[in-house]
Amino acid sequence: MRIRRPRSKKLKRQLQLKPPGTAPETLIADPAAPKPRITVIGYGGESSHEEREIASIDELRAFRARHPRIWVNVDGLGDADAIRHVGEFFGLHKLALEDVLSTRQRPKVDLFADHLFIVIREPMPTDGHFDTDQVSIFLGESFVVTFQERQGDCLDPVRERIRGSRGKTCSAGPDYLVYSIIDAVVDAYFPVLEAFGEKLEELEDRAVDRPNASIVHEIHATKRELLLIRRAIWPARESVGLLARGDSSLIHPETRVYMRDAYDHLVQLIDMLENYRELGSDLMDIYLSSQSHRLNEVMKVLTVIATIFMPLSFIVGIYGMNFDTNHPLNMPELHWKYGYLFVWAVILISGGGMLAWFYKRGWIGPGNWGPGRP
Amino acid sequence: MRIRRPRSKKLKRQLQLKPPGTAPETLIADPAAPKPRITVIGYGGESSHEEREIASIDELRAFRARHPRIWVNVDGLGDADAIRHVGEFFGLHKLALEDVLSTRQRPKVDLFADHLFIVIREPMPTDGHFDTDQVSIFLGESFVVTFQERQGDCLDPVRERIRGSRGKTCSAGPDYLVYSIIDAVVDAYFPVLEAFGEKLEELEDRAVDRPNASIVHEIHATKRELLLIRRAIWPARESVGLLARGDSSLIHPETRVYMRDAYDHLVQLIDMLENYRELGSDLMDIYLSSQSHRLNEVMKVLTVIATIFMPLSFIVGIYGMNFDTNHPLNMPELHWKYGYLFVWAVILISGGGMLAWFYKRGWIGPGNWGPGRP
Amino acid sequence: MRIRRPRSKKLKRQLQLKPPGTAPETLIADPAAPKPRITVIGYGGESSHEEREIASIDELRAFRARHPRIWVNVDGLGDADAIRHVGEFFGLHKLALEDVLSTRQRPKVDLFADHLFIVIREPMPTDGHFDTDQVSIFLGESFVVTFQERQGDCLDPVRERIRGSRGKTCSAGPDYLVYSIIDAVVDAYFPVLEAFGEKLEELEDRAVDRPNASIVHEIHATKRELLLIRRAIWPARESVGLLARGDSSLIHPETRVYMRDAYDHLVQLIDMLENYRELGSDLMDIYLSSQSHRLNEVMKVLTVIATIFMPLSFIVGIYGMNFDTNHPLNMPELHWKYGYLFVWAVILISGGGMLAWFYKRGWIGPGNWGPGRP
Amino acid sequence: MRIRRPRSKKLKRQLQLKPPGTAPETLIADPAAPKPRITVIGYGGESSHEEREIASIDELRAFRARHPRIWVNVDGLGDADAIRHVGEFFGLHKLALEDVLSTRQRPKVDLFADHLFIVIREPMPTDGHFDTDQVSIFLGESFVVTFQERQGDCLDPVRERIRGSRGKTCSAGPDYLVYSIIDAVVDAYFPVLEAFGEKLEELEDRAVDRPNASIVHEIHATKRELLLIRRAIWPARESVGLLARGDSSLIHPETRVYMRDAYDHLVQLIDMLENYRELGSDLMDIYLSSQSHRLNEVMKVLTVIATIFMPLSFIVGIYGMNFDTNHPLNMPELHWKYGYLFVWAVILISGGGMLAWFYKRGWIGPGNWGPGRP
Amino acid sequence: MRIRRPRSKKLKRQLQLKPPGTAPETLIADPAAPKPRITVIGYGGESSHEEREIASIDELRAFRARHPRIWVNVDGLGDADAIRHVGEFFGLHKLALEDVLSTRQRPKVDLFADHLFIVIREPMPTDGHFDTDQVSIFLGESFVVTFQERQGDCLDPVRERIRGSRGKTCSAGPDYLVYSIIDAVVDAYFPVLEAFGEKLEELEDRAVDRPNASIVHEIHATKRELLLIRRAIWPARESVGLLARGDSSLIHPETRVYMRDAYDHLVQLIDMLENYRELGSDLMDIYLSSQSHRLNEVMKVLTVIATIFMPLSFIVGIYGMNFDTNHPLNMPELHWKYGYLFVWAVILISGGGMLAWFYKRGWIGPGNWGPGRP
Repeated sequence: MRIRRPRSKKLKRQLQLKPPGTAPETLIADPAAPKPRITVIGYGGESSHEEREIASIDELRAFRARHPRIWVNVDGLGDADAIRHVGEFFGLHKLALEDVLSTRQRPKVDLFADHLFIVIREPMPTDGHFDTDQVSIFLGESFVVTFQERQGDCLDPVRERIRGSRGKTCSAGPDYLVYSIIDAVVDAYFPVLEAFGEKLEELEDRAVDRPNASIVHEIHATKRELLLIRRAIWPARESVGLLARGDSSLIHPETRVYMRDAYDHLVQLIDMLENYRELGSDLMDIYLSSQSHRLNEVMKVLTVIATIFMPLSFIVGIYGMNFDTNHPLNMPELHWKYGYLFVWAVILISGGGMLAWFYKRGWIGPGNWGPGRP
Repeated sequence: MRIRRPRSKKLKRQLQLKPPGTAPETLIADPAAPKPRITVIGYGGESSHEEREIASIDELRAFRARHPRIWVNVDGLGDADAIRHVGEFFGLHKLALEDVLSTRQRPKVDLFADHLFIVIREPMPTDGHFDTDQVSIFLGESFVVTFQERQGDCLDPVRERIRGSRGKTCSAGPDYLVYSIIDAVVDAYFPVLEAFGEKLEELEDRAVDRPNASIVHEIHATKRELLLIRRAIWPARESVGLLARGDSSLIHPETRVYMRDAYDHLVQLIDMLENYRELGSDLMDIYLSSQSHRLNEVMKVLTVIATIFMPLSFIVGIYGMNFDTNHPLNMPELHWKYGYLFVWAVILISGGGMLAWFYKRGWIGPGNWGPGRP
Repeated sequence: MRIRRPRSKKLKRQLQLKPPGTAPETLIADPAAPKPRITVIGYGGESSHEEREIASIDELRAFRARHPRIWVNVDGLGDADAIRHVGEFFGLHKLALEDVLSTRQRPKVDLFADHLFIVIREPMPTDGHFDTDQVSIFLGESFVVTFQERQGDCLDPVRERIRGSRGKTCSAGPDYLVYSIIDAVVDAYFPVLEAFGEKLEELEDRAVDRPNASIVHEIHATKRELLLIRRAIWPARESVGLLARGDSSLIHPETRVYMRDAYDHLVQLIDMLENYRELGSDLMDIYLSSQSHRLNEVMKVLTVIATIFMPLSFIVGIYGMNFDTNHPLNMPELHWKYGYLFVWAVILISGGGMLAWFYKRGWIGPGNWGPGRP
Repeated sequence: MRIRRPRSKKLKRQLQLKPPGTAPETLIADPAAPKPRITVIGYGGESSHEEREIASIDELRAFRARHPRIWVNVDGLGDADAIRHVGEFFGLHKLALEDVLSTRQRPKVDLFADHLFIVIREPMPTDGHFDTDQVSIFLGESFVVTFQERQGDCLDPVRERIRGSRGKTCSAGPDYLVYSIIDAVVDAYFPVLEAFGEKLEELEDRAVDRPNASIVHEIHATKRELLLIRRAIWPARESVGLLARGDSSLIHPETRVYMRDAYDHLVQLIDMLENYRELGSDLMDIYLSSQSHRLNEVMKVLTVIATIFMPLSFIVGIYGMNFDTNHPLNMPELHWKYGYLFVWAVILISGGGMLAWFYKRGWIGPGNWGPGRP
Repeated sequence: MRIRRPRSKKLKRQLQLKPPGTAPETLIADPAAPKPRITVIGYGGESSHEEREIASIDELRAFRARHPRIWVNVDGLGDADAIRHVGEFFGLHKLALEDVLSTRQRPKVDLFADHLFIVIREPMPTDGHFDTDQVSIFLGESFVVTFQERQGDCLDPVRERIRGSRGKTCSAGPDYLVYSIIDAVVDAYFPVLEAFGEKLEELEDRAVDRPNASIVHEIHATKRELLLIRRAIWPARESVGLLARGDSSLIHPETRVYMRDAYDHLVQLIDMLENYRELGSDLMDIYLSSQSHRLNEVMKVLTVIATIFMPLSFIVGIYGMNFDTNHPLNMPELHWKYGYLFVWAVILISGGGMLAWFYKRGWIGPGNWGPGRP
């Protein structure tokens, strides 16, 4: 009857690492988190693109000198020093770096003097439960830096396009790369929502056909996961809308039309999501009405049985009385020749009459008490 | 008990064709979709209008040269190349063409440099289930291009007006043609909503008179279809409002008053729709209260029967005891001359008293247990 | 059990007369609607006011020449030509005339070059059911034209004031006349809402005291009618607010303070309406809780009866067994001198104990099972 | 079971006195209302303050000449002429005077050329039921005029401050006096809401411990009264906010900070009110869940009794059969020496087994069937 | 069954101390509140920081002269004179001081000529119940004054940072100190909400597994406490947003980015809170559906028992009738050799058939009637 919920341990963990009152701009990494793995892609120059994993800031400096545009991707946030070094190298704001490490941020865009800080969340199912990971993106004049919580993301198609020098990703500026990253993250929600659509339909069938107590837990688990997605994409819509309006000079006008396209995708996601949330709420209604329907059916069975057999038991009870039949008025029926048959006639007629009455009222009959073993 | 839902396969299909991460501006057509059938109407010139089906872009070029204004209509999106060629001929934006092929767009208006891209959805019932098809409209200085998912639409009255040179459609610019198309699509929702109104009233009658488990499914199917309409017309209102305010020079001021009229129709639709959605929510209430009313009636039957026959069975049970009647205090009633009649008197009086009590409380009586077989 | 609803046939009728796709600005009248009856009132000149029914546009022309200000009222919309002639005489916009004939418009204000088009709805109960009629008002520099669906309206007090040259109606411009008309229509809603208030209180009493299935229908019919009023007065508030802000030069500044007064009345109506809608929603709660309370009471009766008589029947059943009493251990009670009295003592004590237990738990007692026959 | 509601007769009464269509600016007083009692306070001059009740406008003229600032308070609205005379003396707008007499106004601020008209509602419990009275305030350059429905208000502390020349009320202008009046009225709602808080807690306790049908009525009566307060203070917030922003030159800048303080109090009231409204909605949930809990308990009692005694009655029924025990296979138990004891053993074991099963499932046991007599 | 609620006595107490109508700007302290304890921290100068508890305003004057920036913290509001003296020393507005003493303020920011008044509420659990305390903050050019209701707050980490001269707190202006205080208060809500998350999950488990009447009280107590937090952080968001936008010159531009960070934290808190509030509402649904599921199970037990034993009791009742078996048609079965066995066969077959039917319908079987003793 019990369904195990994966308790969201993230907040608890962070409160342990960084209790309330910790000074702002303090970078504290969770030692249990994966260690950072830094990969850089240089592109946009005359030579072809270059891609490698680096270990030190010096390597990064040399790499940057060779390429007009670079994309630094950091997977894993388990080492605050490494994060700080990358941040200092690109001159990123310390408050933003603190947000990178506290991975419960909601999507947002922060405008700093010479760079943009964008937070977005990518869907990341774990052990059959839906969850989201934080993707922190910094956009500068000639660089993009992304931080992710662990290896394995939905950005491989973007990398492939750079590697293949396909699309505009290579020729356009870093703002277009940021768009490509956002677009890839946003598109990753479509299969997730499609799966929720199927889950909800299956739950609706079960709520009607095989309602049991565990379905209530499942409905609420689904609603909670939809809430989680909602928290990830509603603020993202606002943030991407901000980028599409282009308040920052780091987003070039020709990129804005693409941002608007990503914005349209987010609006479509929200449409689907709100649809599913409404269906989720309806499911409880369906379950309850199904329960109430079943109770009605159970009570009809009980009432039919009781209504038929209680009067019959009364009738046979009468002739079980021990009155002294010497007195001719005392139960003369017992001595009638056809007394027993007479009683049976009374029993069959009254029992049959009851059945007919119930049939006429539709309480019994073909297809009445639902399907068999649920 | 089970009602088959037509699973919305569109999203699933698109995710197969174009997995997340596909580069933007990639045109991928569903090979299973109908092949494009391109018809052009030239009008507005000194000669009368001309209408034909064309097969190549060259034909289109020749046609366009002959007519000051043309309307190109493409039915069927099964061939990405054909769509691309039409798009390139008119200089349409690639992101917009991508949206034409991904037919799950919500209504919107995109302003490009020299053309407008308008998405609207037309009602398209299929197999008794309501659905909407995407109508993509491009408006240029001297052309209108429309893309639809399949043949058979609600635009024939517009074509008839061009053919008959009736109304302003011929004399006014392409922006008025776009208005005529939008107006025809919007008006096509009125009969659809009228049908939903009838459906809801029928469901309300059934929810009270013949409530069964399948009605819950039907109520929710209706609510889901109303959600679908809502997704089609709410954003359309916003888009048409944008056209009526006329931010684009492609919509002439004299056309804006007509756009405002289409906007008024959309507001009327939304009014009706929200009305119906509220009625749809009330239906579950009605059904549940009807179930609860029936449960009360069933329990009253049971209680009446049990309350009458349990005491009576107890009475006859007493005189079925086998006490040794030699002792004068042991059940002397058994030897009374009128003992049996006495018991019957007790039975009739107590049974009748019960009936009277129930009648007085209104549990039994004329018209009490509802109508017959539902 | 069934309550007849007056099906809103208006939309259906209009869809028959004017199927989707009909060209805009087409005037089609419902031949079954009342024929137009045109009355004119001229006033504001040096001579006193003049009032008459006219039959032709020529008469109207002569009449207009005689009076600085005229009010033309058309009752009945059954003749499209007559409407068109009036419209052409005053130079009214064709889209507005089309709206006059399609009587499902929501309240609105349209600003045209030299006249204002105002739609408002007046309450019009028919056969005990609430409905609203459309009042279309055109305001020009020197004229007011009103179209109504049928004869009999709430504007007689306004006419009386012109006839009696009372109030400002005569001396002020046509904008004040429009205000007077709107004010009369708005005030006509107060008695309607007052009646709904009484209806809701009566329903609340019945929901508690005599809940039956038909009340659910009545509650929902009332909610639907409140929705209808809502559709009539919410957009009217917006429209009158527009007139009060005075974006049009046809509304003189001194009239705006009066429009603001009408606006205040609409806000009061909306306050009352939302109140009543909330009460209407609460009614279903009350009904359901009343049903659930009654079910509890029914089940208590059943449980009390069963709990008392089942053990008693068991006791008398014991002494109905036919054990061979020759064996001294087999039911020696049957041969006790006071056996029968002993059994009665057991019966009375256990039955009484049950009653006491139920009384202590409050299941039985004075005033417990509600009032008598509902 | 019935709880008497004080029917809001105000609207009905006004509709009788002033049927729809009455010309605007018509002053009609309810003859049944208390007759006006006019008191004036002059203050702010070199001499000390003067306070008296006056009977004629001449007296008022003389009084006004003596004092730089006066406050005229009219208690009772039963005489339209007296109201009109006061209004004409100060040059108050006729539409505003009409609003003074129609005492169902919602709080508002109307700006006229040389005076402000402010409507606010003061709490006024009558016969144990909450209601609000209208306070109409006119603010001019050198006067404040207030109209109240009857004698007895919450403004005595303000008068005391003038009498005692305490606080700023005497030294500051009439706008500060208006602030003092509004502040006193707003503060009068705090004890009212505090009382509602206690009422709601008491209802919650009763909903759980002693749920009966009358509580539903009480919950809804409370919700209705909260709606009434809501109608009085929500629009007041808006109006006072307007005064705090100071669009009118009659409110001096130094008074605005005080108006903002009154505004803060209104926001606090709204916070509390919305809190209580949410608690009120929860109460129905609590009541219904309590009902459903009790139904469960009742059904458990019934099921336990039936499950124990039905099998037992069957067992003793077996040995009540009259088979011919001459045949050795026919009920040999009846002749067993320990047959009776054997049956008792079967009865006790099966009954005890049932009890154990129910105990294990938690249906019976200590503290199970709730507290005693509710 | 009863759960004690800590009645919010604050409002009641304040109404006693300061009845409605009390003149504004009157400072009245609750004599039962803790006496003020004033501590000052001077910092920012060339010498290191200084921290001490002071007893008189003279001490404060001397202290202020020594330090460029001081932070005065007052714990306890039980002495109106002490509060007034501090206020006068720094020239704080009297209306703001009045708000300091009336500790039910909602978070707000008031801009005065030369200082800002900020109200925020800190979480303060008391006796296992959640509550909030008011923190009143005054920000001047060179001072920060804070008032708290009692000793013991969440600002120790801020003090530690000043003491250790760590972070910017020492070097930056008093606006940064205000930010640090706000940030510490905001962060103190995270552990509180985390605890609510755990509480809600525990309640959900109990609502399904061990639903009893007390859980309804607990769910509503939790919802009420969440409402309390909501009242504390929703308006705080608005206030901090105002500080981040920086309408006041007292907040330096470089501090605004920090205020925006605190704003982000508040938005995160609100996200969590709304999540929890939605879960709280779902809990009642879960409880009710769990109750309804249990009722179904109870009724199935009853129906199974009744359906099996009622027919069987009828059968054995038949053979308990006392017909005169001399007539060969009267119950010949009684004399059959295998009559008794025949009856047992009928009993076992019909009883077994019932069981099979119930098993097939899924009413009985493994894992059906839920877990054991709840």
